[in-house]
Amino acid sequence: MNREKLVALIKEKKSYLCVGLDTDMNKIPAHLKTDADAIFNFNRAIIDATRATCVSYKINTAFYEAWGVKGWEAMEKTVHYIGDDHFKIADAKRGDIGNTSDQYAKAFFETMPFDAVTVAPYMGEDSVKPFLQYEGKWAIVLGLTSNKGAGDFELQQSGSELLYEKVLRTVSEWGTAENLMFVVGATQADEFTRVRELIPDHFLLVPGVGAQGGSLKDISEKAMNKDCGLLVNASRAVIYASGAADFDEAAGKVAAGYQQEMAGYL
Amino acid sequence: MNREKLVALIKEKKSYLCVGLDTDMNKIPAHLKTDADAIFNFNRAIIDATRATCVSYKINTAFYEAWGVKGWEAMEKTVHYIGDDHFKIADAKRGDIGNTSDQYAKAFFETMPFDAVTVAPYMGEDSVKPFLQYEGKWAIVLGLTSNKGAGDFELQQSGSELLYEKVLRTVSEWGTAENLMFVVGATQADEFTRVRELIPDHFLLVPGVGAQGGSLKDISEKAMNKDCGLLVNASRAVIYASGAADFDEAAGKVAAGYQQEMAGYL
Repeated sequence: MNREKLVALIKEKKSYLCVGLDTDMNKIPAHLKTDADAIFNFNRAIIDATRATCVSYKINTAFYEAWGVKGWEAMEKTVHYIGDDHFKIADAKRGDIGNTSDQYAKAFFETMPFDAVTVAPYMGEDSVKPFLQYEGKWAIVLGLTSNKGAGDFELQQSGSELLYEKVLRTVSEWGTAENLMFVVGATQADEFTRVRELIPDHFLLVPGVGAQGGSLKDISEKAMNKDCGLLVNASRAVIYASGAADFDEAAGKVAAGYQQEMAGYL
Repeated sequence: MNREKLVALIKEKKSYLCVGLDTDMNKIPAHLKTDADAIFNFNRAIIDATRATCVSYKINTAFYEAWGVKGWEAMEKTVHYIGDDHFKIADAKRGDIGNTSDQYAKAFFETMPFDAVTVAPYMGEDSVKPFLQYEGKWAIVLGLTSNKGAGDFELQQSGSELLYEKVLRTVSEWGTAENLMFVVGATQADEFTRVRELIPDHFLLVPGVGAQGGSLKDISEKAMNKDCGLLVNASRAVIYASGAADFDEAAGKVAAGYQQEMAGYL
């Protein structure tokens, strides 16, 4: 999905919500667990309940890999079920030497129809570039993450700037605002103004709203640009809104609540 | 596999060779390609031909994911086929917030019987720790990689040291020499002396010999410690030694050549 279509979707739906499918077999409702296709069936119900109010889904590959081949099957079925009217993110944090990143890009962009993959920047340009070679596909590079460990390296001094600042500044030269986004965690609101000085035009994928405690209001006020420029992700707060038989209905209500709040900021 | 067993294996076999199974469907011999189980059958032949001369196998997950569910099946069959007498590395470059790294650790250490996973350090301590919670299992954290992109961040100044130095120094405090190794590329021979000043006891996983041009002699002279402390990986140079029907025999010869050279350094 190219930038033009993504921006049009956001305007049409008055939403920049991304629903994170961190589907954990141990947390899905009891009545689904006995189903051989439990992960996919859970996802399908969540997707049906949230499709109207979100513009994107983010599949956290770890939760699928934990179940081996069956999990990988559920991931493939899920990404196909989402279809072409949502921006589909593989939250995979991949990145390796060039010939290996080529293979990851093939996995997510050719074998599966994802629009974007999250990529770790540590190994530098040749680890990121293979994800930038596909028309209408995106690399979403880690900038400043939402977790406590962001303090260990990302927020450390690196020459005259912080490491995450160097990453945003350097990586933004490897692609364009049409094929490159950055992850900036919602819990890092103090840094959003600085982030927008460095990369005014790029879309940001913002995790950390909901279970991790980030504020949608803060992010939206500080980091929105003329094309919105935000995909704000909520995972656990949406998909585990209820642990009972009404889990999908509850997820739909939470997603609709985020959408209504977002409509006010747009 | 714990450190004691790994060190004993190295002494017994006079080898610290790791064979990298970066199995690319496009590069395997023509007579195998029509086989529905081509990737696994290629790997099985390579493993049979190299088992005696190496102590470790490294499965590069990207090459399996590129083929989707079928690739993931081939990976699971391969890691089981290797068995318990070799140190089995998932070269996956994973790492995410704590609850997600938990799932990756489950994927590689519980669902599959790997001994170690390669982990990217960018997101800090909570992204690495979940891989350190398993008895006899290892996190192998990226220190200084073998690729050109290592110059973009890893070799940049970070306060009074280089970023990779900060990573080695900081991460080494999160685990021990019994559950933590580091990736240091063979092409970075100039830095090996400094690496050993920072982490004298840890094992290093050293890619970059063979196709990437690193020197086994240089690494061995500069970075070996009293327990050897090295796993030197060769992938393409071994598994694609011949593209014809004798590919396994040719791989066995190249691996045996490395082993003989290693015996001289031990």
